[in-house]
Amino acid sequence: MSIELRNRLFEQLDQLVLIDPHTHINALDPSSHTLADILGYHYYTELSHSAGMPKELIEEEGISAKEKVGRLIENFGPITNTIQYSWFIEMAQKLLDFEGDSVTVDNWESLFDAAEKKMSADNWTETVFEKSRLESVFLTNDFDDPLEGFDTSKYVPCLRTDDLVFHLTNPRTKVRLLEATDTDVTDVASARTAIGKLFAHFTSKGAKACAISLPPCFAPVHVSDARAETALASVLSKGTAADEADQRAVSNFIFWTLAENCRAHKLPFDLMIGVNRKVFPAGVYQGQDLYDSRVSLIQYKDLLNAFPDVTFPISVLASVTNQELVSYSWIFPNVVANGHWWYSNTPTYIQQDCAARLEAIPRTKQIGYYSDMYKMEFALPKFAMYKRILAKVLAENFVIDRNWSEEAAVELGTQLLRGNVETIFDVGN
Amino acid sequence: MSIELRNRLFEQLDQLVLIDPHTHINALDPSSHTLADILGYHYYTELSHSAGMPKELIEEEGISAKEKVGRLIENFGPITNTIQYSWFIEMAQKLLDFEGDSVTVDNWESLFDAAEKKMSADNWTETVFEKSRLESVFLTNDFDDPLEGFDTSKYVPCLRTDDLVFHLTNPRTKVRLLEATDTDVTDVASARTAIGKLFAHFTSKGAKACAISLPPCFAPVHVSDARAETALASVLSKGTAADEADQRAVSNFIFWTLAENCRAHKLPFDLMIGVNRKVFPAGVYQGQDLYDSRVSLIQYKDLLNAFPDVTFPISVLASVTNQELVSYSWIFPNVVANGHWWYSNTPTYIQQDCAARLEAIPRTKQIGYYSDMYKMEFALPKFAMYKRILAKVLAENFVIDRNWSEEAAVELGTQLLRGNVETIFDVGN
Amino acid sequence: MSIELRNRLFEQLDQLVLIDPHTHINALDPSSHTLADILGYHYYTELSHSAGMPKELIEEEGISAKEKVGRLIENFGPITNTIQYSWFIEMAQKLLDFEGDSVTVDNWESLFDAAEKKMSADNWTETVFEKSRLESVFLTNDFDDPLEGFDTSKYVPCLRTDDLVFHLTNPRTKVRLLEATDTDVTDVASARTAIGKLFAHFTSKGAKACAISLPPCFAPVHVSDARAETALASVLSKGTAADEADQRAVSNFIFWTLAENCRAHKLPFDLMIGVNRKVFPAGVYQGQDLYDSRVSLIQYKDLLNAFPDVTFPISVLASVTNQELVSYSWIFPNVVANGHWWYSNTPTYIQQDCAARLEAIPRTKQIGYYSDMYKMEFALPKFAMYKRILAKVLAENFVIDRNWSEEAAVELGTQLLRGNVETIFDVGN
Repeated sequence: MSIELRNRLFEQLDQLVLIDPHTHINALDPSSHTLADILGYHYYTELSHSAGMPKELIEEEGISAKEKVGRLIENFGPITNTIQYSWFIEMAQKLLDFEGDSVTVDNWESLFDAAEKKMSADNWTETVFEKSRLESVFLTNDFDDPLEGFDTSKYVPCLRTDDLVFHLTNPRTKVRLLEATDTDVTDVASARTAIGKLFAHFTSKGAKACAISLPPCFAPVHVSDARAETALASVLSKGTAADEADQRAVSNFIFWTLAENCRAHKLPFDLMIGVNRKVFPAGVYQGQDLYDSRVSLIQYKDLLNAFPDVTFPISVLASVTNQELVSYSWIFPNVVANGHWWYSNTPTYIQQDCAARLEAIPRTKQIGYYSDMYKMEFALPKFAMYKRILAKVLAENFVIDRNWSEEAAVELGTQLLRGNVETIFDVGN
Repeated sequence: MSIELRNRLFEQLDQLVLIDPHTHINALDPSSHTLADILGYHYYTELSHSAGMPKELIEEEGISAKEKVGRLIENFGPITNTIQYSWFIEMAQKLLDFEGDSVTVDNWESLFDAAEKKMSADNWTETVFEKSRLESVFLTNDFDDPLEGFDTSKYVPCLRTDDLVFHLTNPRTKVRLLEATDTDVTDVASARTAIGKLFAHFTSKGAKACAISLPPCFAPVHVSDARAETALASVLSKGTAADEADQRAVSNFIFWTLAENCRAHKLPFDLMIGVNRKVFPAGVYQGQDLYDSRVSLIQYKDLLNAFPDVTFPISVLASVTNQELVSYSWIFPNVVANGHWWYSNTPTYIQQDCAARLEAIPRTKQIGYYSDMYKMEFALPKFAMYKRILAKVLAENFVIDRNWSEEAAVELGTQLLRGNVETIFDVGN
Repeated sequence: MSIELRNRLFEQLDQLVLIDPHTHINALDPSSHTLADILGYHYYTELSHSAGMPKELIEEEGISAKEKVGRLIENFGPITNTIQYSWFIEMAQKLLDFEGDSVTVDNWESLFDAAEKKMSADNWTETVFEKSRLESVFLTNDFDDPLEGFDTSKYVPCLRTDDLVFHLTNPRTKVRLLEATDTDVTDVASARTAIGKLFAHFTSKGAKACAISLPPCFAPVHVSDARAETALASVLSKGTAADEADQRAVSNFIFWTLAENCRAHKLPFDLMIGVNRKVFPAGVYQGQDLYDSRVSLIQYKDLLNAFPDVTFPISVLASVTNQELVSYSWIFPNVVANGHWWYSNTPTYIQQDCAARLEAIPRTKQIGYYSDMYKMEFALPKFAMYKRILAKVLAENFVIDRNWSEEAAVELGTQLLRGNVETIFDVGN
């Protein structure tokens, strides 16, 4: 009973045309050219590396796309159980007309060739958008991105700010800021001017969010201008040799300034909380980051209280933080639960986290899912995974456990998948 | 199969007459007079506030009960998914003969009027007790509560001690202590005397528990009398300006003294662990508290070892602490797992936590549920929610997974719901 | 549907002949002689103690095996709900031909007598191995174990190193080291020599792993030889009176030296992370340890990076750490998720943890289960519990949710139960 029920709910949710509110798509080159663009995704390279494939073999310079794909698929055996592998298969079936249910040394070449052919079509990106039922995708733009050469209503700009908050110690950041804003950041006032110009630029180009990823130890506080002044002087002159306290004060000052600009420009500020960078420096590209699950949203107490008018869509890296996210979204008007991020983007954790959110956070304050993808082809299988789990939770926890009608359940699912993205980010409506 | 099974188990558990071992009922005014008493519950005001309803609209002074209810129901749209909303609907259906399955701008007025009429009946409280199949409820009494004017076998007193442990810095607390005990607390000896008198008073009035809620940072240790003496002097003279170390020492001294009195008077000491007060000061009344899930029962190691003869029914605020509660209850004879508290009182967390307890804690050491209610009308839907989940866990994890008979499963459920309340708190038997 | 399906999967997994990769079996006396050996297991004594049975009654010196068993069974009432009790019943049914489904004051004596008779048979141990479908078991050997008098291919030695890392403060450890290695540990060089000899001895006897249990606060770092030298001098002369920093430096130095020897001898290094010893000193034998769930694998970052060639099968005590274990196994080639340990070895946590691992860790890097048993009779019911849960997860999360064939699901289960033990520990193949 429950299986037919959830299939019915899935079918309806699967008809929706969606907006993907967080991706790493390059608007100038959004989709893949060969399977190497697909399998070069860190979800595959890191799993293959973890399963024993040498980094040198994976990342060898100068090998052809076909060679790279062949090597990775030859080493697929140990990862066929993973949900990530299933994304690849579903993508191949639905977008590339692949008919098998596993890709092996025996059949990969024909798939590679077929993919290359399809992907070289002029309208390939359009085809992917259509088959994936996607209307638009949010980008992740460096602060000095010119945001030119693409349709910003389809590829929605989003100001990514990790460099500003955590890497002003790097002289290159100051140079990039100067080039992007014509402002030489030398003190608090010029820093404010430069950041204000970034926001003006981004919002003039249709940006719909500011975003940042944050380490577990970060606990933003307001610092006085005087403190910011000395800290900034220290960091700009000494770089990474600056006192840790000064570096922290600068991060806090910049972070607070970003929040002030989000308020002024009415931009939601996506907080992605919990990542430790380069925990495994010998890992493959983008496969080096991990986390410490000992983090709490209480660290954001001052921020959430200081900016009641800024909406903070929050993503947490570890599922053990999800209950805090539920509780903080249930109490703070400006906190929104946002998707299922990275290491929590696997079915078991999504199901538990999604169910807990659906029953205790106002339905208007939950963004169901974003793909976090680097290439357009991943939206389809990732959203499909989420929609199946959402359908399961709606079927079991609402229709069966709480006697909801199927229609009401689909309506709730629709709001999570589409409606809230529109209202929270002011897009597509 | 499993759904019929769990319905059968639920039907049997639902016949039980229960004692609610933790509520905030006012014995002199236990039930509601209008729907405003129901919807004024922080579970509704805080969700509506979180969903965007201004605090001023919710808490405006001088508006009528009907006006308040109307405003809240007009803003119900965003919270119809929540389990808290479902409590309201089930309460209306079962206690107020409401026939719909949603309360909207179109039907709320007639419900309001019908409710007011029913609630004004002389025997309304009795009716609620009967329909809810409740025999008695535990109260949460301030230490200076005279405990007069009500039947203490039906409204069982419970000494709440947060003020004593954490607010001796407030001069008002000292005055209240003097008024309640005729003892002027000026030093360790007089503090012991005063607290002893409170316990004598409460137990003479049939109190069956001492209770306290504790912040995540609290880690009780024994302090010497000499240390307590200087700390108490500092706190009594300087109030909140006293050294933090002194404040902590006083909290520890008072807390330890409470445990000594629990031992002397054979009272269980309910520990409700994990709440941070006033995290969101701009929140609605009672909708300002949150938590830091980074807490461990290891913080209570000294206490649990020092008082082997005191039973500690422990509630934890975050589900991530539940496994520790399971393990500590499994090892320490004096630890009992107590209900599903506040932010963990939602189906997904209850189910996971309940299942983990049922399979690893002795069956005599688990208190299934308490309502934590402020008005009598909430016992019915809250216990019903819990009983449905308990029936589900018993059906799936015991009857199906472990081949238990339905009879044995119901017996286990009965012990959690009723038997253990009797034996642990020495009531109703 | 799902129940028949999981039964079919279970039946197939239950046919496998297994190697148990972590036990506390005494190779010279592996199985029980009476039920007292079974019920003396801390899982029963601690639960009975927790449920109110006095320690003096449980551990009284000089009582007969029959008297001890009688006392424990008389007090079984409060623990019949626990999964541990169900192990006892299943063991009695499958190994002792017990026909009831509960052991009570009315029937225990005949069971005791029947058990004693069966257990006194010369081939009892062989019978248990056969009925349990076990081929061999890993031991937990003290570093000074001579490893003589038994078949090391059936009872596989494993070097347990807690004493070396944490108890060099105890003069007895130094004496035992001298006796075992003919090396008087007085400085860094002689410590290295002694440890090298232990590894040579153990590997010459067919040891297949080095293992250690670690407290939540441990965070291994490399210390210089100079630092180790002064710290070791301090610890060897002052014992537990040595500076805490010195004790920590010695633990780090020894721990790092163990990892170096694991690398040199190609031994996996089992890390069992999270236990606090003697939290409840008044508890029964082996029923005194608990934990602090606030622990993170980030504490092992330096170690994991420093020893890419050492395989670390990691067990975590608390289920809240399982997601980190999933993520670290997904990224680090040298991290393997290992079994379900102790307080996480109950169905609810196993199911959640197992499901999360199966969908995100390469299938080659997961060791499904070990029994941790002290007596051979426990392998059967403990593995049976795990196999039922594994079958449930494979049925629901793979066959139903992901359209896997039953054959593919059984293959994955087989790899977790048997294949990976062979490849990771280089045994049985």
